Amino acid sequence: MDIIILNDNKLNLKYTGKELSPLWAFKTFGTRKDSIVAFIGEMEVSKDNMKDLADVKKEFNIDYPIKSEKAINFIVEHFDTNNIKVAYLRQRLLVMMAKEVLNDFGVKVRREGDDLYIGDRKLSVSIASSGLVSHKIHLGLNVSSKGPEHVKVVGLEEFLNENEIKEVMKKIAHKYVGEVERIERDIRKTLPIL
Amino acid sequence: MDIIILNDNKLNLKYTGKELSPLWAFKTFGTRKDSIVAFIGEMEVSKDNMKDLADVKKEFNIDYPIKSEKAINFIVEHFDTNNIKVAYLRQRLLVMMAKEVLNDFGVKVRREGDDLYIGDRKLSVSIASSGLVSHKIHLGLNVSSKGPEHVKVVGLEEFLNENEIKEVMKKIAHKYVGEVERIERDIRKTLPIL
Amino acid sequence: MDIIILNDNKLNLKYTGKELSPLWAFKTFGTRKDSIVAFIGEMEVSKDNMKDLADVKKEFNIDYPIKSEKAINFIVEHFDTNNIKVAYLRQRLLVMMAKEVLNDFGVKVRREGDDLYIGDRKLSVSIASSGLVSHKIHLGLNVSSKGPEHVKVVGLEEFLNENEIKEVMKKIAHKYVGEVERIERDIRKTLPIL
Amino acid sequence: MDIIILNDNKLNLKYTGKELSPLWAFKTFGTRKDSIVAFIGEMEVSKDNMKDLADVKKEFNIDYPIKSEKAINFIVEHFDTNNIKVAYLRQRLLVMMAKEVLNDFGVKVRREGDDLYIGDRKLSVSIASSGLVSHKIHLGLNVSSKGPEHVKVVGLEEFLNENEIKEVMKKIAHKYVGEVERIERDIRKTLPIL
Amino acid sequence: MDIIILNDNKLNLKYTGKELSPLWAFKTFGTRKDSIVAFIGEMEVSKDNMKDLADVKKEFNIDYPIKSEKAINFIVEHFDTNNIKVAYLRQRLLVMMAKEVLNDFGVKVRREGDDLYIGDRKLSVSIASSGLVSHKIHLGLNVSSKGPEHVKVVGLEEFLNENEIKEVMKKIAHKYVGEVERIERDIRKTLPIL
Amino acid sequence: MDIIILNDNKLNLKYTGKELSPLWAFKTFGTRKDSIVAFIGEMEVSKDNMKDLADVKKEFNIDYPIKSEKAINFIVEHFDTNNIKVAYLRQRLLVMMAKEVLNDFGVKVRREGDDLYIGDRKLSVSIASSGLVSHKIHLGLNVSSKGPEHVKVVGLEEFLNENEIKEVMKKIAHKYVGEVERIERDIRKTLPIL
Repeated sequence: MDIIILNDNKLNLKYTGKELSPLWAFKTFGTRKDSIVAFIGEMEVSKDNMKDLADVKKEFNIDYPIKSEKAINFIVEHFDTNNIKVAYLRQRLLVMMAKEVLNDFGVKVRREGDDLYIGDRKLSVSIASSGLVSHKIHLGLNVSSKGPEHVKVVGLEEFLNENEIKEVMKKIAHKYVGEVERIERDIRKTLPIL
Repeated sequence: MDIIILNDNKLNLKYTGKELSPLWAFKTFGTRKDSIVAFIGEMEVSKDNMKDLADVKKEFNIDYPIKSEKAINFIVEHFDTNNIKVAYLRQRLLVMMAKEVLNDFGVKVRREGDDLYIGDRKLSVSIASSGLVSHKIHLGLNVSSKGPEHVKVVGLEEFLNENEIKEVMKKIAHKYVGEVERIERDIRKTLPIL
Repeated sequence: MDIIILNDNKLNLKYTGKELSPLWAFKTFGTRKDSIVAFIGEMEVSKDNMKDLADVKKEFNIDYPIKSEKAINFIVEHFDTNNIKVAYLRQRLLVMMAKEVLNDFGVKVRREGDDLYIGDRKLSVSIASSGLVSHKIHLGLNVSSKGPEHVKVVGLEEFLNENEIKEVMKKIAHKYVGEVERIERDIRKTLPIL
Repeated sequence: MDIIILNDNKLNLKYTGKELSPLWAFKTFGTRKDSIVAFIGEMEVSKDNMKDLADVKKEFNIDYPIKSEKAINFIVEHFDTNNIKVAYLRQRLLVMMAKEVLNDFGVKVRREGDDLYIGDRKLSVSIASSGLVSHKIHLGLNVSSKGPEHVKVVGLEEFLNENEIKEVMKKIAHKYVGEVERIERDIRKTLPIL
Repeated sequence: MDIIILNDNKLNLKYTGKELSPLWAFKTFGTRKDSIVAFIGEMEVSKDNMKDLADVKKEFNIDYPIKSEKAINFIVEHFDTNNIKVAYLRQRLLVMMAKEVLNDFGVKVRREGDDLYIGDRKLSVSIASSGLVSHKIHLGLNVSSKGPEHVKVVGLEEFLNENEIKEVMKKIAHKYVGEVERIERDIRKTLPIL
Repeated sequence: MDIIILNDNKLNLKYTGKELSPLWAFKTFGTRKDSIVAFIGEMEVSKDNMKDLADVKKEFNIDYPIKSEKAINFIVEHFDTNNIKVAYLRQRLLVMMAKEVLNDFGVKVRREGDDLYIGDRKLSVSIASSGLVSHKIHLGLNVSSKGPEHVKVVGLEEFLNENEIKEVMKKIAHKYVGEVERIERDIRKTLPIL
């Protein structure tokens, strides 16, 4: 699995929702493996690019239901199956490992499903979905506390400095890949049930 | 999904590894849904009943590689797929939620893959596997600190009283089921990727 | 599984083929479960919205190959698999149960594949298909005997009064859901074959 | 798909439950296709060979919970998938088509799940299950009205003569295969849902 | 499986990439089985219709990356699964059998992945992909040695006369179908592994 | 994927059929990846360990239907799916690549399905099958021309010296793994079909 960490985001990537299209990582970076791409950049997803129809419904009169001046973005693509249940299970792993890493950095976060909170303010957005040849996950962790007006948002910049934020990004990406690969090894040591 | 919590374990259940056989919960409790069974009891798994061949290899001269006088045991069975990858992904969720609940009770645990530790002592054993019509997970959390001689073991009784331990057991079971069901609902609000 | 029966169709729903798009029931009714929606309304499917290419071929010079002034419409969506074989097997179940219910009401119908007939006149149209995250079924039972000119059509209004037709609609929906859920329970009591 | 109808059962086959083992039709008849085998013979299934654990539970003190002096037996094996949900869906099709054929012969049968009744007496037994490379279905329709003592049983011999019973057997087998093959053709004319 | 060989290509088919769309063979020839279509005709695939993004990347300034005045074209569609891994495995079979047949005709070809070469000149283009209800394969074997300017191309006309080329086309199609069907029969004689 | 080549077979491995059991490579060599193991040794498979029931039938009065004093043995295990169709497709790839390598060494072999011949004598035996968590392939290429009495057998020792035979073994193993990995990369550059 490829880990692509854009430390300085010289490509000026932002998350618009289109990054969930199949083979985006191949088109952008040429990777021909399963991959996690991580960068710090703007998030701005228009309703047309949203996969979460519950959010679209709830925020039907808002043009960009997902919006952040600055966020850590993870974009994951796996080709081993396009089963959306696997996509959501891996999304939960990613979110829970983000929580683990933030806790290790002293940031106390609370999880509800695929959402992370600090106090009653929302730290993250996330979605999983599947296409014909792969499944994908996006996780965004606000760095800036300025989000869309309809949500009480919190950003990591209130708790961590720039280097720590980059460190958090890197740790989460590596932890996720380590876990996915460990599961592959676990499968290969396990007797079936008869 | 059925949640079967045996508060006083009047059936005197112990975990021997045979509880991983398909339809064990149906045979024992008559449930005809996916299920999580939770009880506090002995763990004693002989090599013949072990699914983890790495443990069998490592501890080839030990008769009962898994052994605990008293442990919280969770036995999960899902029939939606028999894919072992899904089994292991759900196992990780269960382990990570066990960690979350223990943290909420003030017990600081560390996770490596599917193992939980307190300090450098091992708190848990866990396996996932799949059969022909279902997949299954076992998670055991030591209550007693007496384990097999070849492993440094820690038990929850050092940190929690009996009621708290039962509360932990109940909370983990409910949290797991809540998450599994929330994922099902998430799937049903998500547009696919074209 | 959600059963959504629109007794008076106050939403004025008609079947145009677009109701087969993924998550239509979520978008329209907010349901986050597998679902069957039933209503009495017009059917008018243009060639562009038809999934049955054999019909499109056969009726290439007809603008609306599927057309009925008034029909009972069932729209089913399942998210457990997107396998089109499962979609067509469940479609057959639905059609055969429609036949069973109509027989119970004294209407003698004959089945050929997924088509129902009374004498040599066609009572029903049906299609199954699958998308990326779900599979869907439509079954339409003519209430009015006025169909497109190229097909000899029969409607239930020749045999049943309005209340009976509503009763038929309700019975079929409940019977289908009952059967699907019973199969789930049957799976959970069945030993595999070794 | 092969249709193997043993008109006179010269092999003296009986249904013991072992016929559900994988590749039984290949071992017995050399068929290398999906198959339905139909014969009239005794049914006697011991508890050890039963796949329906609910029956085993309910009738725990009975040695042969399934028993009939004479029954039409259908044994189906499909290799296209080993998904037990498909096995049960196809079982329902088979049972419903048995009902259709019997109705055409003037025998009024009632269906509940995978059971057929005449009045309040049970006409049939059936199971579906799956193995590693195939799934299998058994459907038995009593010819003789003598069954095990714990069940009120009815046999077709009360309603049909020997030739009609053979005709029923043949019609059901052909109808089942016709439907399975028609579904395959339906799949190949259906546009997916985007 | 249907084998559709267009000996004289009176329909004047060419390969443009659009022939990979689902149900193309049904729309064009009415087949309702898995199929292989073979014809000799032009190949000209614009970038918009290319599925191989590596080629699109490499040849980003070329309008028609795939181009041949005359080629044998095979278009395969299977509906048994839409798993892209199966699509690529079957593509390899097809390419390797093309090599076998050409060798039998005395044309020495070399294979690298899904590409065939004579010496250092490229004889073939090929892609596999999957849609929602089927997977598809294209294999093109140049007859003319005139290809796009950016590739050194070789055509069969340098080695074989017109009749031999047609014979090669027919042999490959029949060999492919024979192998696919033999595998189906092999599956139905094989015991699973316990 | 792990390539385990036992150049001198110091472990004195022979092929008895039991090597097809799940996790054999993990138990024997500790590998926790998909793997191909290659060694030169005896083949002797008793009827009880045979997975090919057609061979068992044909040679019902022979104790060891598969027998060779000395053969190159390949034992492959993949955990990405347990679909037996994929097992047989990969088996065909392996057999065809064995043919390619032997051709490169000047040994002219002919293929029929999964069998290789030199003239009318049989060079190979092969089987593919699947278990619960993996699928497996065995390919045996006779080195010695002494086989069981009921088959006309040929061995590579008639054409190649010992070093060449080892070279052939190594080349086939590497070629197989190279192709499997190339297919994985091909999947990750291919747009789906809409």
